[in-house]
Amino acid sequence: MSKKNNSDKLTVFALGGVGEIGKNMYVVQYANDIVVVDSGLKFPEEDMLGIDIVIPDISYLTENRDKVRGILLTHGHEDHIGGLPYVLKHLNVPVYGTKLTLGLVENKLKEANLLGETKRILIDEDSEVVLGSTLKASFFRTNHSIPDSVGICIATPEGNVVHTGDFKFDHTPVNGQYANLQRMAAIGEEGVLVLMSDSTNAEKPGFTPSEKNVGVVLEDIFRKAAQRVVIATFASNVHRIQQVVNAAESTGRKITVIGRSMVNVVAIASDLGYLNVPDGMLIEPEEVNKMAADRVVVLCTGSQGEPMSALTRMARSTHRKVDILPGDTVIIAATPVPGNEKYVGRTIDELFRLGADVIYSGANSGIHVSGHGSQEELKLMLNLMKPKFFLPIHGEYRMQRRHALLAEAVGVDPDNIFITDIGEIVEVQGGAARRAGKVTAGNVLIDGLGVGDVGNIVLRDRKLLSQDGILVVVVTLSKQDGTIMSGPDIISRGFVYVRESEGLLDEANRIVSSTLLKLMSENVNEWASLKTGVKDALGRFLYEQTRRRPMILPIIMEV
Amino acid sequence: MSKKNNSDKLTVFALGGVGEIGKNMYVVQYANDIVVVDSGLKFPEEDMLGIDIVIPDISYLTENRDKVRGILLTHGHEDHIGGLPYVLKHLNVPVYGTKLTLGLVENKLKEANLLGETKRILIDEDSEVVLGSTLKASFFRTNHSIPDSVGICIATPEGNVVHTGDFKFDHTPVNGQYANLQRMAAIGEEGVLVLMSDSTNAEKPGFTPSEKNVGVVLEDIFRKAAQRVVIATFASNVHRIQQVVNAAESTGRKITVIGRSMVNVVAIASDLGYLNVPDGMLIEPEEVNKMAADRVVVLCTGSQGEPMSALTRMARSTHRKVDILPGDTVIIAATPVPGNEKYVGRTIDELFRLGADVIYSGANSGIHVSGHGSQEELKLMLNLMKPKFFLPIHGEYRMQRRHALLAEAVGVDPDNIFITDIGEIVEVQGGAARRAGKVTAGNVLIDGLGVGDVGNIVLRDRKLLSQDGILVVVVTLSKQDGTIMSGPDIISRGFVYVRESEGLLDEANRIVSSTLLKLMSENVNEWASLKTGVKDALGRFLYEQTRRRPMILPIIMEV
Repeated sequence: MSKKNNSDKLTVFALGGVGEIGKNMYVVQYANDIVVVDSGLKFPEEDMLGIDIVIPDISYLTENRDKVRGILLTHGHEDHIGGLPYVLKHLNVPVYGTKLTLGLVENKLKEANLLGETKRILIDEDSEVVLGSTLKASFFRTNHSIPDSVGICIATPEGNVVHTGDFKFDHTPVNGQYANLQRMAAIGEEGVLVLMSDSTNAEKPGFTPSEKNVGVVLEDIFRKAAQRVVIATFASNVHRIQQVVNAAESTGRKITVIGRSMVNVVAIASDLGYLNVPDGMLIEPEEVNKMAADRVVVLCTGSQGEPMSALTRMARSTHRKVDILPGDTVIIAATPVPGNEKYVGRTIDELFRLGADVIYSGANSGIHVSGHGSQEELKLMLNLMKPKFFLPIHGEYRMQRRHALLAEAVGVDPDNIFITDIGEIVEVQGGAARRAGKVTAGNVLIDGLGVGDVGNIVLRDRKLLSQDGILVVVVTLSKQDGTIMSGPDIISRGFVYVRESEGLLDEANRIVSSTLLKLMSENVNEWASLKTGVKDALGRFLYEQTRRRPMILPIIMEV
Repeated sequence: MSKKNNSDKLTVFALGGVGEIGKNMYVVQYANDIVVVDSGLKFPEEDMLGIDIVIPDISYLTENRDKVRGILLTHGHEDHIGGLPYVLKHLNVPVYGTKLTLGLVENKLKEANLLGETKRILIDEDSEVVLGSTLKASFFRTNHSIPDSVGICIATPEGNVVHTGDFKFDHTPVNGQYANLQRMAAIGEEGVLVLMSDSTNAEKPGFTPSEKNVGVVLEDIFRKAAQRVVIATFASNVHRIQQVVNAAESTGRKITVIGRSMVNVVAIASDLGYLNVPDGMLIEPEEVNKMAADRVVVLCTGSQGEPMSALTRMARSTHRKVDILPGDTVIIAATPVPGNEKYVGRTIDELFRLGADVIYSGANSGIHVSGHGSQEELKLMLNLMKPKFFLPIHGEYRMQRRHALLAEAVGVDPDNIFITDIGEIVEVQGGAARRAGKVTAGNVLIDGLGVGDVGNIVLRDRKLLSQDGILVVVVTLSKQDGTIMSGPDIISRGFVYVRESEGLLDEANRIVSSTLLKLMSENVNEWASLKTGVKDALGRFLYEQTRRRPMILPIIMEV
């Protein structure tokens, strides 16, 4: 291990996950050894029209594929593992993860037909992983909103690089798996050269409450509910699901599980021993209507108001198997992710309209806690690790910035704190760190089966089309004498109701004809000029009449 | 007054503002007298692509135009007066409002060329307005985030109908204008048949803090700021603006005002005496750079992260007159309206990147308070008015529902509480109230100059176009022998990058040709069938290849 060469150096950078929440992917490189931490996806921003998901640009990794020693996973959330099926297609390297994490990954790889060809290596807190000739990784248990989360310590010839993964400090964990404070303290004692730490809740003062608090509230709600309890939460929150099971058990209710990802996670987590469901506790959705209402819990997806999710369908009375009945108690055990507030609000309204009693977050309802540590926990991590250099990661810029201030407050030298953007390299050599340029980094947009075939021009067109629609103008000209043989015909999509706008479209027709005839009488005959002429004249007319700018597509034929 | 006829009855309903936040418009009718309260607009939902604003469907009013006695305005916010320019075009009736409200309305009507033909009648708290032969309105002062807000009591032969407008109880109002508790108590004492009350904050426990609290915080920030202070807030919040002026004065700073609506409101409110700005306090934006940084306040629009607003431009360094400099203090004195969280977050990130210190809401920053009363204030209003019948208005369904529970809690008979949707009539006769059907109600969408010419089909097309774009397929067939004379040519917009998808489009071309030739060989010659054939075959192929469903527009010509 640790063959140190004077010209070798350590570089650390993010390909995703800084300046954003999502598509986490971090790179640690020493000499010819590259280690990747996580490989996540992000859901599209509102201006990425029609896009399904977004993954990081991994050009740097594919260009250096012979150096990539593996992908280490911190935990099984989509923003940390969701990019794997795309990344592994181009980069066949071993994947390291804890049992539950690999369980979730395997499910994904199976769907993508990549399971056979991917080397998966199970790690636990006591594993040591040798990565190339210079790097070695070890792990420490953390608390998060999914079991089996770990932080990673990568030993390099320059010193230790610690990546916290996503974490909180839950002093009363649901599964009895405490964050390993002793291990973290020992790493700090040994010395941390670079710390990369989760900034998600850097804006939140205080301490994030224990997941166990939610269990107490749930049991109370279950007990008081006169009829069925319907509860939606994040499918991956196995701790929460365990508490739903516990509350159901202690209040004599059976559970039916609805929604693809919820069914998946319950199956995988039960199989692997992360979820303890008493025999006979689970019932099929079809059995719900045969049971007394106060003996039933419906556990489902849809806590973000996602249009196709189980809860949304129930709220709209379009679910095939379960209806919401007056008097049912519906719990939405989640906080809306920014951007989803309106969807969640609409679901709540629809549930109330059906006569349900809806319990949702806000006003200290106690039915949700975050999986990320607040300011006091971030400071605790900083003081356990006592890093020389610090990179706040996993957050929007404002969160990174707050996290940097926290690090300053606990004594990290401000000159040793690096708020980076994706691709920005921090280089460490001889105990000194500096910014050292950029590698290629960015968003790769996935639309259907297409990876990266939708870019700015396509998005700009979708944006234009979405605002004012399109007019296709079809005209046939005579080759001989430059008269109009047929048309112009104007076809409108997404612009105006044709029936109510006949006058406008008739006038548009006349303008196209007269523009063409005028241009041709001036001996303008190149199609490009004729098309531009039609576009300009028609665009001007429509803007004057409607203040809209539909896309105009002239199709001029010659016979 | 009060000619009572046994068959006459009172009806109350909303044309906008229930089941939604926005486009407030309420109707009170007795016999042949109709009174409208407010005439607001709403900003489009995220599925209303390309739409600028939304107003209520006023068919009921235009069909009964001879009975409409006037529009009473509670205050000058857009969701209460923004629909007037559209409504008055179709319904020329008198408009009643307080001084500031009418000042803001006049500005709007001037822009719409409606000022001359609109009768505007100034009211104050002591006005009594006779409306037709059966109705009479009086007013009571309330507190809200704009001065000169009033509630309205409409005396009818059946009894008093009270509309609170938007309100909070601010016991230390910035302008010294207290909510008139005595007047409200007297109305309650006289007897309230129907109360319609603001549900915006019905989910919030406790009491909304006084606007004055914000002033204390602002002065403290202004004093400590080493360089310029930039503050964005709602332009209509004249109280907030007054406190910015006060804080600037006491800390020796001058103010420049940026953003069209902010400039407008400052001018109108100053002219009408609602804003007290010391002489020489205001400076032009051009002077900012000549002044010492710690002598300047920039008061601007953009507190919602609106893309074209002053603060957003400054954050992106694209504002013509003011740059954000490192060390500037930027205050965003507002809470993001649901749906705007991401925009606001992005603005904050950009400001931090420029080196500014950004102070924004959350974590008890104290820089914003709501203009709407919380649960304790809603109960106070209910107990002041002691209504027989209660309609929670001005809110999404879940807020109306919470408000109904509050009313029950203070003793309103649950059978006398009506949560209504837009258009749903509550009828009162002989002291008994009941639901009595619906009038036409809905959204009228305004896109550019078009009012109501964009409906579901156009929106559906825009949605489709925004998701996967459009392919236009042009083919010329021979009349004689059914061969393809030219094409197929495929033009793609918003689907894929043409250059990177040549293979796909070539194959698409072949599929169109073979489909057409096959159909024609089977003697299918009607254009409609040929077009459907092309659409189906091409659509199927593209979905298989890309999992996308672009709109396909076949254009088949015959020569």
